[in-house]
Amino acid sequence: MISKSKIQYIQALKTKKYRLTYGSFLVEGEKMAKEVLESDHLEVEALYATSTWIFENKHLSARYFNQTLTITEQELKSISSLNTPNQILLVVKIRDFSWNETKIRQDFSFYLDGIQDPGNMGTILRIADWFGMPTVFCSPTCVDVYNPKVVQATMGALCRIQTTEINYTDLMARLPNFPTYATSMQGENIFKIPSFPKGIIAIGNEGNGLSPEILANADQLIAIPKHGHAESLNAGVAAGIIAAIMTNCS
Amino acid sequence: MISKSKIQYIQALKTKKYRLTYGSFLVEGEKMAKEVLESDHLEVEALYATSTWIFENKHLSARYFNQTLTITEQELKSISSLNTPNQILLVVKIRDFSWNETKIRQDFSFYLDGIQDPGNMGTILRIADWFGMPTVFCSPTCVDVYNPKVVQATMGALCRIQTTEINYTDLMARLPNFPTYATSMQGENIFKIPSFPKGIIAIGNEGNGLSPEILANADQLIAIPKHGHAESLNAGVAAGIIAAIMTNCS
Repeated sequence: MISKSKIQYIQALKTKKYRLTYGSFLVEGEKMAKEVLESDHLEVEALYATSTWIFENKHLSARYFNQTLTITEQELKSISSLNTPNQILLVVKIRDFSWNETKIRQDFSFYLDGIQDPGNMGTILRIADWFGMPTVFCSPTCVDVYNPKVVQATMGALCRIQTTEINYTDLMARLPNFPTYATSMQGENIFKIPSFPKGIIAIGNEGNGLSPEILANADQLIAIPKHGHAESLNAGVAAGIIAAIMTNCS
Repeated sequence: MISKSKIQYIQALKTKKYRLTYGSFLVEGEKMAKEVLESDHLEVEALYATSTWIFENKHLSARYFNQTLTITEQELKSISSLNTPNQILLVVKIRDFSWNETKIRQDFSFYLDGIQDPGNMGTILRIADWFGMPTVFCSPTCVDVYNPKVVQATMGALCRIQTTEINYTDLMARLPNFPTYATSMQGENIFKIPSFPKGIIAIGNEGNGLSPEILANADQLIAIPKHGHAESLNAGVAAGIIAAIMTNCS
């Protein structure tokens, strides 16, 4: 049986404040949990699973024998934030972000400026993971990437992508002469730009777009050409289109 | 005060069955409602609004005088499917789909094969609206485009885009020699294809991708190149990337 203090700890990890305090986050759902357990990049602090799951996944439960606690479906339901029936919950250590300037300069990175929707955040981390962009910088106004809904939406990208929270000004100070691309209706048609030196791709908030500071300091304003009448594209879709073109046409 | 029969009618329109029976759907939220009221493409059957909204939007409430019913915030809350405070709810006629083969052949169209997530469906309709793709075909296994959550996510695209439910086989029978593009890991790198004749862009279900029938009959299999390790891209993101490239590089 799961102790009261463990339940309290798990509940606490649903809030950003305690994720920062303890340096841990929750992973739920079989698919996500398996990705984490099979990955070498994340350290598993605790594995709560039903006896059925443990029986059916002997190789994994053996590997994580010291961290594993058997739990009933009922108990799991009471601590889970998922609505659907569930077999496993992990407590995982938040990875330290290792600043490696040489490495950062070799790739495109996103700078997310106030992405609020957990689904969009997860989608953008998947995009980074798909197009080989190993680092995602987040403004302090973004939804936390370790929010359970984001973790769910990343589909495992958190096992591979490094993220860190940083102000745009601080980022620029640490990466002199590294270009920023910013989307703007006034920008140049992205299909007319012949090539893209590696740099930061800034993606703005769902409702308000990019902050004036970023727009004013960007080296290149880019636009996704519009042939119809929609007012805007979803932030994740815009990020996907830009990443696809830049990583393939540079 | 809103009558019991009107409440029942509105509740009924939250289900696809009754939307088909009555040929009407609901539009909620001020932004979406305004887009519909200002559009000439959709017929408004009834406008339920608070006295505050009516006072602040005199030109619109005057234009829709015959359809307008004043309602209290409390009443609106009881019939709304939104969680956030709300001022207006519309009942809108579902537009008849007018089959115009010449027009269809002039543009790219999506064929959505079992898109299940309302957010994805709304996002894809916005993409069609952005890139000037006036028609979206949906398989009978898709979430209904008039589902309140989809309507919310379309951000007004439903005022401009025509949609219809149709089997892929029937669609092909009605559009002989009109190419279908289908995404597949085995497809050709979309960035290496020199040009794209107008055609149908098939987008598959979030979990299972495209059905074998479509993959077997497609004229061109295309792939979004992957440089990283993600297993997949979100369906809306994939649709956005493909639409962006095809409408700009053809």
